[in-house]
Amino acid sequence: MSNSLIQVIGNVASDIRFNSTAEGIPVASFRLAATERKFDRALSRWVDGDVNWYTVSCWRALAENVTESINKGDPIFVVGRLNVRTWERDERTGISLDITAELIGHDLSRGTAKFQRGIKVMSEESSTYAA
Amino acid sequence: MSNSLIQVIGNVASDIRFNSTAEGIPVASFRLAATERKFDRALSRWVDGDVNWYTVSCWRALAENVTESINKGDPIFVVGRLNVRTWERDERTGISLDITAELIGHDLSRGTAKFQRGIKVMSEESSTYAA
Amino acid sequence: MSNSLIQVIGNVASDIRFNSTAEGIPVASFRLAATERKFDRALSRWVDGDVNWYTVSCWRALAENVTESINKGDPIFVVGRLNVRTWERDERTGISLDITAELIGHDLSRGTAKFQRGIKVMSEESSTYAA
Amino acid sequence: MSNSLIQVIGNVASDIRFNSTAEGIPVASFRLAATERKFDRALSRWVDGDVNWYTVSCWRALAENVTESINKGDPIFVVGRLNVRTWERDERTGISLDITAELIGHDLSRGTAKFQRGIKVMSEESSTYAA
Repeated sequence: MSNSLIQVIGNVASDIRFNSTAEGIPVASFRLAATERKFDRALSRWVDGDVNWYTVSCWRALAENVTESINKGDPIFVVGRLNVRTWERDERTGISLDITAELIGHDLSRGTAKFQRGIKVMSEESSTYAA
Repeated sequence: MSNSLIQVIGNVASDIRFNSTAEGIPVASFRLAATERKFDRALSRWVDGDVNWYTVSCWRALAENVTESINKGDPIFVVGRLNVRTWERDERTGISLDITAELIGHDLSRGTAKFQRGIKVMSEESSTYAA
Repeated sequence: MSNSLIQVIGNVASDIRFNSTAEGIPVASFRLAATERKFDRALSRWVDGDVNWYTVSCWRALAENVTESINKGDPIFVVGRLNVRTWERDERTGISLDITAELIGHDLSRGTAKFQRGIKVMSEESSTYAA
Repeated sequence: MSNSLIQVIGNVASDIRFNSTAEGIPVASFRLAATERKFDRALSRWVDGDVNWYTVSCWRALAENVTESINKGDPIFVVGRLNVRTWERDERTGISLDITAELIGHDLSRGTAKFQRGIKVMSEESSTYAA
């Protein structure tokens, strides 16, 4: 079991970047925005809070299918391991919340989906992952 | 937080039954089969174990979209509350594992999906749930 | 990731049975009762529902510490894999909900705990697990 | 269901700060360190990765019992809602990962605990929370 397991419901906030490692392993990544809900005592009800931003990565068949299936703006859920990473560029530093996804899908409370089994072969290099 | 929160990855094992309550609230239900994975010490690797069977229910917009989107055989994930229910019919009794779903989607590690925001209006009674 | 991952908050409903496998691996098991919460529309509030019964198993250091720490009646939480098992005895059959626990602890919303690192050695056979 | 639900296994990295709101509601907070696990392909095994740092808050009976039960260095688990907060102080800015805990307990795979039901009354103001 991972030490920081996270489940996020949010909206895809970037295009999907698809790539392959030197060994030919497919990897996809994208930005995910999740609006927090918090209880407003004065109003006695739940209201929108801040937005949490994540960078989601996924691998192999999941990477290929996500690239084929998910578009900027889609409401999705992600389950995976959270890794907090500090970055430096030029004179700026920041923190990135990286999720290595084990499970990704569209949130069917917010729309409909037409599903097709198997994966589309995206390149010859990754064809060994085709089902 | 529920007292029995469950996350299942499995295959839809029935058609979707769609209905409305007397008050016009949409509800959908279906059977879900999840194959357990267990570690075989003799073989030193994970193998398929028994199959867990669930009855999944969902409500409102989620019920309408699930009915529109999910077919028998689809690989999906479900997050929800587990309720163990004893039933009697004629001279037989049994136990049903009911999940009231809060989150449902296709498992994108096993296929691709074309998503469309909003819900299809399924009946006049439920049109107030259309987005 | 398991195909049926469950998180239960409930009360220990039996004594802890402690044992060792032929290879000397410690294993502990006990019964767990979790009262469901459901929304009563007539009353417009959440009320107690049925009780879900589970059989929880755990292994190695967790088995030894659980045996030392947990008593019948304690409020605890358990995270683990759910396995639905059919049993037969004499002329009766039934279904048992088995959880193989990965994480067990007392629910600190319902009492206090004094914690001590490491494990108590429970037998010579299991002493290799002592920290 | 929260939009960013997280489950962390880690070590308490500060003393517990206990306080009450103006309305007399108990609140406790502490720092939590969780070491990530990542797969090292060169070594073909899981190794320790970076450490994720969190600030955990809890309320009411849970706040009182946590203050009574948890000490710096204790191995615990936390389930709750994650909120990423940007802070500024003097000329520095940073990001804090705040968890509002719904469930806290000691990790019994790493030690033993003696549990006692009910809560210790910590102040007259909070005595209404005593069980």
